[in-house]
Amino acid sequence: MPKIFIKEQHKEVAYSPGENLLEILVANDIFVDNPCNGKGLCGKCKVKVLGENPTFISETEKKLLKKNEVDSGVRLSCLVIPREDIAIEIMQKETNHQVLTTGYVPTFDFQPAVHKMVFELKKPTLENQMSFEDSICNVFGAKEMDLRLLQMHRIAEETITGVFHGEDLIGLEAGDTTDFIYGVAIDIGTTTLVTALIDMKTGAEIATASMINPQKKFGLDVLTRITYEIDNPENSKEQLQHEIVKAINEMIGEMCHQCNIDRKNIYEVSIAANCTMMHFLLGVDATSIGTAPYSPVFVRAKMILAKEIGLEVAAGAKVYCLPAVSAYIGADVVAGAYVGQLQNVQENVLFIDIGTNGEMILSNHGELLSCSCAAGPALEGMNISAGTRAAEGAIEDVKITESGIELKVIGNQEPIGVCGSGILAAVKELIRTGLVRKNGAFIKKEMLDTSDYRYDMIQLDGKKREFVLKSSSEPLIITQEDVRQVQLAKGAILSGFYVLLQQANMRINQLDKVLIAGQFGAHLSADNLVGTGILPEEVSDKLVYLGNTSKTGAYMALMSVAVKKQIEELACRMEYIELGASEGYEKIFAQCLIFPG
Amino acid sequence: MPKIFIKEQHKEVAYSPGENLLEILVANDIFVDNPCNGKGLCGKCKVKVLGENPTFISETEKKLLKKNEVDSGVRLSCLVIPREDIAIEIMQKETNHQVLTTGYVPTFDFQPAVHKMVFELKKPTLENQMSFEDSICNVFGAKEMDLRLLQMHRIAEETITGVFHGEDLIGLEAGDTTDFIYGVAIDIGTTTLVTALIDMKTGAEIATASMINPQKKFGLDVLTRITYEIDNPENSKEQLQHEIVKAINEMIGEMCHQCNIDRKNIYEVSIAANCTMMHFLLGVDATSIGTAPYSPVFVRAKMILAKEIGLEVAAGAKVYCLPAVSAYIGADVVAGAYVGQLQNVQENVLFIDIGTNGEMILSNHGELLSCSCAAGPALEGMNISAGTRAAEGAIEDVKITESGIELKVIGNQEPIGVCGSGILAAVKELIRTGLVRKNGAFIKKEMLDTSDYRYDMIQLDGKKREFVLKSSSEPLIITQEDVRQVQLAKGAILSGFYVLLQQANMRINQLDKVLIAGQFGAHLSADNLVGTGILPEEVSDKLVYLGNTSKTGAYMALMSVAVKKQIEELACRMEYIELGASEGYEKIFAQCLIFPG
Repeated sequence: MPKIFIKEQHKEVAYSPGENLLEILVANDIFVDNPCNGKGLCGKCKVKVLGENPTFISETEKKLLKKNEVDSGVRLSCLVIPREDIAIEIMQKETNHQVLTTGYVPTFDFQPAVHKMVFELKKPTLENQMSFEDSICNVFGAKEMDLRLLQMHRIAEETITGVFHGEDLIGLEAGDTTDFIYGVAIDIGTTTLVTALIDMKTGAEIATASMINPQKKFGLDVLTRITYEIDNPENSKEQLQHEIVKAINEMIGEMCHQCNIDRKNIYEVSIAANCTMMHFLLGVDATSIGTAPYSPVFVRAKMILAKEIGLEVAAGAKVYCLPAVSAYIGADVVAGAYVGQLQNVQENVLFIDIGTNGEMILSNHGELLSCSCAAGPALEGMNISAGTRAAEGAIEDVKITESGIELKVIGNQEPIGVCGSGILAAVKELIRTGLVRKNGAFIKKEMLDTSDYRYDMIQLDGKKREFVLKSSSEPLIITQEDVRQVQLAKGAILSGFYVLLQQANMRINQLDKVLIAGQFGAHLSADNLVGTGILPEEVSDKLVYLGNTSKTGAYMALMSVAVKKQIEELACRMEYIELGASEGYEKIFAQCLIFPG
Repeated sequence: MPKIFIKEQHKEVAYSPGENLLEILVANDIFVDNPCNGKGLCGKCKVKVLGENPTFISETEKKLLKKNEVDSGVRLSCLVIPREDIAIEIMQKETNHQVLTTGYVPTFDFQPAVHKMVFELKKPTLENQMSFEDSICNVFGAKEMDLRLLQMHRIAEETITGVFHGEDLIGLEAGDTTDFIYGVAIDIGTTTLVTALIDMKTGAEIATASMINPQKKFGLDVLTRITYEIDNPENSKEQLQHEIVKAINEMIGEMCHQCNIDRKNIYEVSIAANCTMMHFLLGVDATSIGTAPYSPVFVRAKMILAKEIGLEVAAGAKVYCLPAVSAYIGADVVAGAYVGQLQNVQENVLFIDIGTNGEMILSNHGELLSCSCAAGPALEGMNISAGTRAAEGAIEDVKITESGIELKVIGNQEPIGVCGSGILAAVKELIRTGLVRKNGAFIKKEMLDTSDYRYDMIQLDGKKREFVLKSSSEPLIITQEDVRQVQLAKGAILSGFYVLLQQANMRINQLDKVLIAGQFGAHLSADNLVGTGILPEEVSDKLVYLGNTSKTGAYMALMSVAVKKQIEELACRMEYIELGASEGYEKIFAQCLIFPG
């Protein structure tokens, strides 16, 4: 079989000719960014083919790649079908990603479902041959023992600790172990997984771990992964579940190792995730989420055995999955709404979680309306020509001044691209400085005086105007198309905002607070949100940033039975509005596309 | 690797030298009877080594085998350690076994836990994106859907049938399938497995299947299998469970095939078994049953998912395991007591299930006392020199007349051995004709006149007297040791009988009825039971035969929620008396050894 040599990883993989290069690399767990999942659309799956270039160059590649890239051997791996030995260089590096694991936590009483009781067990005698189960049930007042406990335990000790989940006996440990109860709170994002190991005796977060969602190899966004599921009906559900479960098991292992804790002492795992990720996690068909009428298989909270999905914790451990409202208002958003205290507020509060989808919940004196806007991945740095995720080397802020362009780069490195907050800052600056007009178009270069400090910032690529973010041998450019992507995101989010207000018969000045949730939202400053018109000027002093509310909600549910109940009630109270089906939506959307200024 | 050729099966198996022949054969699923599980004690695992005999003959073999057997190449396979290619002949044939699948069934109301409801499902719309789970829960009034149902089902049809177990939704089927509900009732005996496929709409038994318990390869009786479990701690629990589950799956397949029914339509399996078999079935450690104080891991009834133990039926199907009382009063006996209506009787009734253990329950005006006597396997034809199981060729009845010995043989074949009912009949006849004295010893041949019709029936083997059941080139003999085995069984059972009466302060003539349960008990006639003194003369006209009450009890539990509850209450009401620990037991036992006459 021919081989592919991956230079900088010192790896080689053998392959059977026929598959494209991207498929071969992904199958061998070699990461290549491919937002469109190998459809030849996004132009992100670049690799450099080394040596004499043996591969045919397609028209699509010529269109999506720059000429100097083509000349230096860069190809789109999804369009290369190798036939012989080749050597390549992977162009994206998997860099340390910036993930926020902290955030606002409201005060609440700890009353976890998991608790322990210690007891002395009487030994059976010839006169009283009481079974092990009966002895245990008698001392603990339990109704019966789970089969798994009967299968596992041969406890000869007389001192024994029973682990309970509510009234159910879920574990037995020899000796007195009442001091050791652990749980895990998890936020499964489409992009990022965040886990926290919790000492359930004290409620303290004693370790955290995070990683990029390994399902990325099946596509970067929810819809691409659903498409993968549809295209591979024989085993995709198992694959998608396996990837996420494996990753969680690894992170739990890492945290337990840090704290020198046995994973068998973890008795509950509490999980928030969007609706699709929750379906994938539980091995449930998510395809109906991908097409109208977007009816998911389930939205209710679930309490299952960790073993049922393959999580490696205590044998009797439970997994609590927070409830969702609809296909696009997932448990992550419900968790956020709970952390934002929407179940209690009597004020008018808008909760917003900005990501690929912008989810919003409006509390109108306690009445809850929700919607989800297809913002697209632009605000996360995707679908942007120089876009990159928020990792080292990403431009996260931009200032245009008379003396030039100031860039703030994560890790203070040489910039390699622009992430979500960076593109938003850049567009805001383009609007502020008048380089981009209200309709989203770049101004004509000839309208500027050559002495204008902005003159050199605009250049022409053929007939297309573009903004030079950084000029060098490898320039970073913001194209007209990039601005359009941000504009579409803005239109989607702002129109959702107005539809909710309209439905609630509320004026903007009646809003008391706007809560910004999500680890991504935390990087979007009020200046940039208002400056690009994603949110209207009137709310600029009402913004409150909550951080990763999804993980916080999972943590609170883990630590309290009452919180679980309240979160479930909250999910039931939220009404969901499908924007596309709401009256006059197209008109509102068109108006919302207009930039401020 | 050297090979073993099995002549009549036209099979050959390769092996690594080191293991004994029995181990090699068992590992290759070739049946060799080995009651002592390869300990070189029982002398039953005979094989004939063909050709020049290449194997060393041990002293044990010389003792346990007859000279003409040794000369013709017969060896005990557990004592042969082959080193090269050999050809053998298996001496026992696996013959059709005689299993009783019918018996007395008291009338009762059908109210199975499993039931179905048909409904029309509304399709989701863009305005009402209700999840699949919510739609289902709404129409069926269910609280939530099991994860397995969410994982499995993608029902596009609008007509849908919900399968319920009590209030739990356990299955969904497309269309209206309310006419098809099936269940299975099972009796797991140490020796025999009996299954029945039940149409739960009508309560009719529509198919049956039975087979020898495949765990026999780990020993013929409970204690030998427990010893196997102890000796092989790494995987014996899994092996023992696997064998029984595989066998049940095969029988279910066979019954479904007979009736042209899909096994996925079976929603409940109800199982009675002795305590050890139930532990093995559920993959629970049974070793504590093997040693004092005989405390099992569990005795309570269990309702688990069929999937948890690997039964191949509907994905959401449940398994109900009937409750036991103690290590040696298992769910099979509780089932029998229920079928014998011990929960209701106001009379004085003795229930007795005769097998390797004789289990007895005495109802003293509704108060229930139970005990278990170690009768040994003699009454099942084991531990008897010419013993065989109740299969074709087994002598099942014996009459001694002045004109000779009349034998009744199963299948009307040439006799190959004597089964339980046969050995009992033979001993009864030996007592009746005075050939065996009250103390169990054969009379001296010299006490008989040479003209006596009994003269030729007694012969001497060295100094030992023995009874010639059939004289021919391959004679069938009943030895003094065989009579002793029956005597021990008699002593064990009768002493249990008296201890129960004593505990209840009851005289024999106060007994109203004696119920004989079990497929084996059904073959033991009142004449033989009383004639050998296993039961006293006074009860001979009070015997009632119930047949396989274990399976019947499982069937009744399957068909009624109320029966399940009553059986569980019955088990709780039974007091268990450990004979060995009861006062003056040795003396009673010694008295009970005396034969009548």
